[in-house]
Amino acid sequence: MKAPLTYRDAGVDIDAGNEAVRRMKACVASTKRPEQLSDLGGFAGMIGLPKGLVEPVLVGCTDGTGTKVLIAIAMDRHDTIGIDLVAMNVNDLLVTGAEPLFLLDYIACGRLVPERIAIIVSGIAEGCREAGCALLGGETAELPGMYADDHYDLAATAVGVVDRQRIVSPEHVRVGDVALALPSSGLHSNGYSLARKALLDPAHAGLRLEEILPSCGRTVGEALLEPTRIYAKAFALLGGLEGTPLHGAAHITGGGLLENPPRALPEALAVALDLREVPMPPILQTIADQGVPSDELVRTFNCGIGMILYVDHERVEEVERILASHGPMRVGCVTERGNGPRVRLIR
Amino acid sequence: MKAPLTYRDAGVDIDAGNEAVRRMKACVASTKRPEQLSDLGGFAGMIGLPKGLVEPVLVGCTDGTGTKVLIAIAMDRHDTIGIDLVAMNVNDLLVTGAEPLFLLDYIACGRLVPERIAIIVSGIAEGCREAGCALLGGETAELPGMYADDHYDLAATAVGVVDRQRIVSPEHVRVGDVALALPSSGLHSNGYSLARKALLDPAHAGLRLEEILPSCGRTVGEALLEPTRIYAKAFALLGGLEGTPLHGAAHITGGGLLENPPRALPEALAVALDLREVPMPPILQTIADQGVPSDELVRTFNCGIGMILYVDHERVEEVERILASHGPMRVGCVTERGNGPRVRLIR
Repeated sequence: MKAPLTYRDAGVDIDAGNEAVRRMKACVASTKRPEQLSDLGGFAGMIGLPKGLVEPVLVGCTDGTGTKVLIAIAMDRHDTIGIDLVAMNVNDLLVTGAEPLFLLDYIACGRLVPERIAIIVSGIAEGCREAGCALLGGETAELPGMYADDHYDLAATAVGVVDRQRIVSPEHVRVGDVALALPSSGLHSNGYSLARKALLDPAHAGLRLEEILPSCGRTVGEALLEPTRIYAKAFALLGGLEGTPLHGAAHITGGGLLENPPRALPEALAVALDLREVPMPPILQTIADQGVPSDELVRTFNCGIGMILYVDHERVEEVERILASHGPMRVGCVTERGNGPRVRLIR
Repeated sequence: MKAPLTYRDAGVDIDAGNEAVRRMKACVASTKRPEQLSDLGGFAGMIGLPKGLVEPVLVGCTDGTGTKVLIAIAMDRHDTIGIDLVAMNVNDLLVTGAEPLFLLDYIACGRLVPERIAIIVSGIAEGCREAGCALLGGETAELPGMYADDHYDLAATAVGVVDRQRIVSPEHVRVGDVALALPSSGLHSNGYSLARKALLDPAHAGLRLEEILPSCGRTVGEALLEPTRIYAKAFALLGGLEGTPLHGAAHITGGGLLENPPRALPEALAVALDLREVPMPPILQTIADQGVPSDELVRTFNCGIGMILYVDHERVEEVERILASHGPMRVGCVTERGNGPRVRLIR
């Protein structure tokens, strides 16, 4: 007679999963929107549409936090990586003109530690409150053999809604539109494999995460963990303006300042961006000092700009005024492309 | 002067990512729905709502394929795991009465091999076509240091829509409703950590994936990789019936036959399920033979039942007729719960 073999023997602890769900309930509830019909525990989350939409269009996107989680794991600090997760998704939604409506998260780990999952989810809930979207559900998967015991990965999907006639898309951008930049809070959640190699690898800077970086006034780890900025409130302010001064918007995500600004432009137009007055995050300067070529920097990192808005040149001052607390910077303008590149960077 | 340090040096190949996107385009396009406004490449996917809904409610869920991907990796066969991914999400949607509308996928890997990503996505697209939902977007992340070079993880989010007055929810289930089971195709995508331990661990069955399992007429690996059934067509047939003969539905996912059937019941009711006539997948019998206690089997695996429908007892024959090609089996009925458990299994 063999000894009985259970799911727990195979490395999966259903009770730990249930405990994690119990611990995250209050956080999740704090994100509830009035349109929401469901609570945690059903097979799926349910939510109605906001009132007053003429022809609602749903907008969806999926993203993760990349290897930034390795910094959170190395520092054993898990309370803000969820903010990054929400930001990476919600910022992609916002550029279409959509209002974030809900988010679902996926957490995969080698061994499910309920307290840690609850802390991660508290960050996700904080991000959702900042973005105004409901944390409608999610999945926490214990996957022994796929992740190291203390490793985890995060992904999420955000869904928003926009009235069809208010969709922001490339065909609205015109020659002469002003490129307004909203500052990033640091590296956001892109380029961490390169950042870690440049900063932490003994063959390069060889820094330790707990080392104070004088230019940052805090440790390398703290600078790297700085949460990604969520631009939902800035876009909500823009949405409250009469007419449509916002012609286009580009979230500066993977691909940096080289690949993202053109994604919001029609084929025939280009943008010239003057980066000389844009403050570079100090941590990025340290990375640059490790011999990362300038072209590689601008196609990997946001270089201080988290979002670029293409704004009707006749209404720039009005937009700057309403966004004053978000630190808008005029960094360039939209031009004919001709046979040139889609982005010209002045550095 | 140091040698220049690039993103590729850090293990991230942007060109491989772009190549993967190029390869998956035709597949993704094959899932397009008429309401869809966006193509691949924007910051987010966009889709309108189907016509004719009075009060649309959005339904969302997120799930992964668990450690079933380790079987796909070990067999180097990646064309069907995407079907599992869609099934795990869409089946969770269907039980609310929702029509699947779109899905977004997340693929994380240690090293991005464009051909392999394209094959995985071809399976996701096949699942989406079967479910009738658009593959609206996704994220492929190359995360060196988080996954072994040839490892990957999959997650997805499915979003559907249901008219508010047609939501299927526990309060509609009544004493006397008949429990109709729809057969599973095998283990679906739950319990693989236990299945792998029981079947492959030398301390237990010690089988090899390429070994023929006589009871299955195929190899252990093939039996384990059998794609999860997608029940979208069965639910579409039910949705076409007059009135609402379907009072509730439970997707038999993680938690097996013990935890899922009650999720579709109100607190005061219970269900008795007679499993004696339900064919058990042969691979599950081999797992059971390894000393997995019967209680553990029913709370981990679907035991041959992928979906349970709670059907108005006056309309069971009509429902059986319309679902004939989906193999419905009467397995029990809904009763008062009293002080008893929420599920009674007759084995």
